Amino acid sequence: MPVNLNLPPAVPVQGVELATLAAGLKRNGTPDMVVARLADTAVTAAVFTQSAFCAAPVTLCREQLRSNGGAVRALLINSGNANAGTGQPGIAMARGHCQALADALSIPPDSVLPFSTGVIGQLLPDDIMRRGIQDAAERLAGSEAMSSNHWADAARGIMTTDTQPKLTSQSVTIDGQVVTITGMAKGAGMIQPGMATMLSYVFTDAAIELTDLDAALREAVDVSFNAITVDSDTSTNDACVLVATGTGVRLDSTHAQWPLYLRALTRVCSDLAQGIIRDAEGATKFITVCVKGGRDVAECKQVGYAIANSPLVKTAMFASDANVGRLLMAIGKSGVQDLDASRITVSLGDVVAFSNAGIAEGYTEARGSAVMAQAEILVTVDLGRGDASANIYTCDLSHDYVSINADYRS
Amino acid sequence: MPVNLNLPPAVPVQGVELATLAAGLKRNGTPDMVVARLADTAVTAAVFTQSAFCAAPVTLCREQLRSNGGAVRALLINSGNANAGTGQPGIAMARGHCQALADALSIPPDSVLPFSTGVIGQLLPDDIMRRGIQDAAERLAGSEAMSSNHWADAARGIMTTDTQPKLTSQSVTIDGQVVTITGMAKGAGMIQPGMATMLSYVFTDAAIELTDLDAALREAVDVSFNAITVDSDTSTNDACVLVATGTGVRLDSTHAQWPLYLRALTRVCSDLAQGIIRDAEGATKFITVCVKGGRDVAECKQVGYAIANSPLVKTAMFASDANVGRLLMAIGKSGVQDLDASRITVSLGDVVAFSNAGIAEGYTEARGSAVMAQAEILVTVDLGRGDASANIYTCDLSHDYVSINADYRS
Repeated sequence: MPVNLNLPPAVPVQGVELATLAAGLKRNGTPDMVVARLADTAVTAAVFTQSAFCAAPVTLCREQLRSNGGAVRALLINSGNANAGTGQPGIAMARGHCQALADALSIPPDSVLPFSTGVIGQLLPDDIMRRGIQDAAERLAGSEAMSSNHWADAARGIMTTDTQPKLTSQSVTIDGQVVTITGMAKGAGMIQPGMATMLSYVFTDAAIELTDLDAALREAVDVSFNAITVDSDTSTNDACVLVATGTGVRLDSTHAQWPLYLRALTRVCSDLAQGIIRDAEGATKFITVCVKGGRDVAECKQVGYAIANSPLVKTAMFASDANVGRLLMAIGKSGVQDLDASRITVSLGDVVAFSNAGIAEGYTEARGSAVMAQAEILVTVDLGRGDASANIYTCDLSHDYVSINADYRS
Repeated sequence: MPVNLNLPPAVPVQGVELATLAAGLKRNGTPDMVVARLADTAVTAAVFTQSAFCAAPVTLCREQLRSNGGAVRALLINSGNANAGTGQPGIAMARGHCQALADALSIPPDSVLPFSTGVIGQLLPDDIMRRGIQDAAERLAGSEAMSSNHWADAARGIMTTDTQPKLTSQSVTIDGQVVTITGMAKGAGMIQPGMATMLSYVFTDAAIELTDLDAALREAVDVSFNAITVDSDTSTNDACVLVATGTGVRLDSTHAQWPLYLRALTRVCSDLAQGIIRDAEGATKFITVCVKGGRDVAECKQVGYAIANSPLVKTAMFASDANVGRLLMAIGKSGVQDLDASRITVSLGDVVAFSNAGIAEGYTEARGSAVMAQAEILVTVDLGRGDASANIYTCDLSHDYVSINADYRS
């Protein structure tokens, strides 16, 4: 059961047609292919996994974006097979599938971006993919593009081990026009033999040039998808895509309302990213690690991740154990230089647990445990040496995490 | 149950007297204090945790070693309380206990090194410590120093959640004399509320100057204690101490047999370090990650630790799942720059699983699974871009790890 996963409802975005189907990549007959047809006015920015071992579709996406300069006309997404660890044959196959979709939709071959998630080390079944692509193209032709059912279907179609779809919207009024931002994500559900993959697709009907769109995406991702961790593991296939379909109001970074727009975009990304954590494998708690008083954001994130990725901290969270020692241990091992323990304050919720290099005056384990018993836990670390801050979002480490990741084949 | 923890038997080292007792720090009445009295000819080198949040005894050890220049005459070790997160009062108290032991043994106050492991955030019970120190000093006066029982008792006395003591010896013949190296360690048994602590004490009867002794310790630690990981967490109290009692043959780094001696010392440290992993919380497998073909040892260790610390890899190991994808994921996220997937080879045991950027020809899951079903698993990664190599030793992530670390208070 996800931890308080209640996202603001989603509304369709003009300029996006969606087809979702069960092509047959997954043996259980659930949807495993999503195709998005984008308006001819659409501009697309994307960020990808930093893994040195990125999968074939990531390599191809980067190549296509360099070639088309953001003029993406279709997204081809499959689950059930990650097309990772497949070498040159995997890239050639993904290129062939982009070509097939381009032919079917009469769009340039370099305007298709491919995404895959699922089993690794196996080539995609070519015939199943090609039949699915034809089928999807036909459905798009007749699709009621703006039906919200299509959006809910797509959000389900990209899922692997997520227990709930993550789909949400924000809207802002700019120059008297409503601008919509709708995103969907699939989580770090790492049950597929081989890979976790975090995929996220955000669509907006504004008209935004690539430079601004790219900057907006990076800014939003930095505090959302790049501020979450389940278990420190990073997939070969992670991708986050932002499409501005250009069917609505024109916007750029000099517009007075740009900050308002950015805030809404960031909210969508944050809701999706935090939704992934809320629905993470075996999660029973949603934990926000707020690190402030740092010299820069980088060191705040470093301390935050050291805490959020520590198996000892995470098991203590699972046990609702107010284990301040493990938090100190994680701060200590973070690798941030010259930390002064006497200036550091650690709080559980609003209970100060550690200050002046020792357990805080008035702190009792009962007060700490009352915070830890909640499903939503805030840990605040004040490094006491600057003005920078960063939040990292994570979950606990439960028996179910081990079960899900160890036992899925047995 | 530890995984194949069978260490070569231990023999006492001349110049070391040991007293082990239940001072009352642990409520269950098991031994919780060990005092080692060292010969007046002894020279001591030590390495400590890199944690920015080191515990009071670590701070004091560093201070004492600066003051005494390696002329350590006694080690004062307690379990049951880590004296960590205790600020200046904790340091003052540890200093008082060193003084008390120095008085009782008529040795200089700065010649005592203190070590603590156990609960954090609580001051040591002063009266219990002082009574224990007096008691230990009296026992030392009448102790049969060379009884191997004393050594076995001490190895048990420093344990926390270890299920077995780790105590072992190697000997080499140099200039016609037998030189003994005997070490004991307590493991990353992280069940104490707050802290894992790795403590290791190695004694040798050779006479070695501090500079050479320190270099020897660092070289041995680098491939032993600094090459293991249970869960990536680092304690505030970790320490590894090497005492050369000076009662036997004189040795220095220019001696023709120095490499032989170093090899024996490294073997003792490796056996203890690997013993810690074999007896790690919840461990059911002992895993060696051998990374070779790197540009330098640092990048080999970086890849090795990325694999060894990955919860997804560790749960797959627990499940005996030949999950090559998770190994690739971990290599990819290691942060080593410019890795070329087409030059990387990954093997499970002697079965090549990945090469030429794809699943290796002839690899079958059945062959991989046969390797993974063993209690001892070797994963070899050849980065294909240099001559450096490094081994990292780890264990799997089991249900018991979560149970031990989450449930110990409930």
